[in-house]
Amino acid sequence: MAKNEEAVKKDMFGLGEKNVAYAKYFIGTSYLNGLVAPDDNIDVNVSNVNFEPGCRNDWHIHHDGFQILLVTAGEGWYQEEGEPAQLLKPGDVVAIHEGVKHWHGATKDSWFSHIAITKGTSEWLEKVDDDYYNQSTK
Amino acid sequence: MAKNEEAVKKDMFGLGEKNVAYAKYFIGTSYLNGLVAPDDNIDVNVSNVNFEPGCRNDWHIHHDGFQILLVTAGEGWYQEEGEPAQLLKPGDVVAIHEGVKHWHGATKDSWFSHIAITKGTSEWLEKVDDDYYNQSTK
Repeated sequence: MAKNEEAVKKDMFGLGEKNVAYAKYFIGTSYLNGLVAPDDNIDVNVSNVNFEPGCRNDWHIHHDGFQILLVTAGEGWYQEEGEPAQLLKPGDVVAIHEGVKHWHGATKDSWFSHIAITKGTSEWLEKVDDDYYNQSTK
Repeated sequence: MAKNEEAVKKDMFGLGEKNVAYAKYFIGTSYLNGLVAPDDNIDVNVSNVNFEPGCRNDWHIHHDGFQILLVTAGEGWYQEEGEPAQLLKPGDVVAIHEGVKHWHGATKDSWFSHIAITKGTSEWLEKVDDDYYNQSTK
């Protein structure tokens, strides 16, 4: 069993289903468990996002809103353009402001889980290819 | 050691300091660990709120926003006016819409911890006195 696989798969906020809808914006397999959907009053989406080892999303930017990550299990990375990648562990919190280009995902050898609180829309950009991922997370 | 005391005190999102600022709106002792403060872009507050056994907040209403509770440790109660109290356990999620009168807090014999995602202002109302608390949570 890969590192933290059990912790992520038994995460209290649920593994959810394979993240098919957004798969084209990821390298590797992720799982998504929706917790709160936006409505007329609540203008954020709250979801538990789970990544297999090495899985990460493409560079992207949040518009007309923000994203907050609450790390609940495993180990992962968060990187803003022009900055070193930050190693993330359970209890870490990342506040991503509107307009900030970034990506996030698991470490090479560990499953990873975070809750994402998202307002607004996402602009998806280039992929975090293997060369870049390996270089920026070593 | 009381039920779930260690789970709450070692919760990954932190116990924080005694919640002195809001103590007048609670019966019993709570602890608050701020995770994300609102700013020009981010219009929610994210905090980890921790309750000793029997601690609960007063009836209140969120205006111009909402509150989402993500339960991370222990056992607690959430009650909306006119509805039975709901027992909360880790992994439970409560979405509280604008205008809904409610209270939340620990069970009698367990510590309790939830993350609160809050937008807007709170209107604080009457206390959940011992008679009401004992009656609605038995």
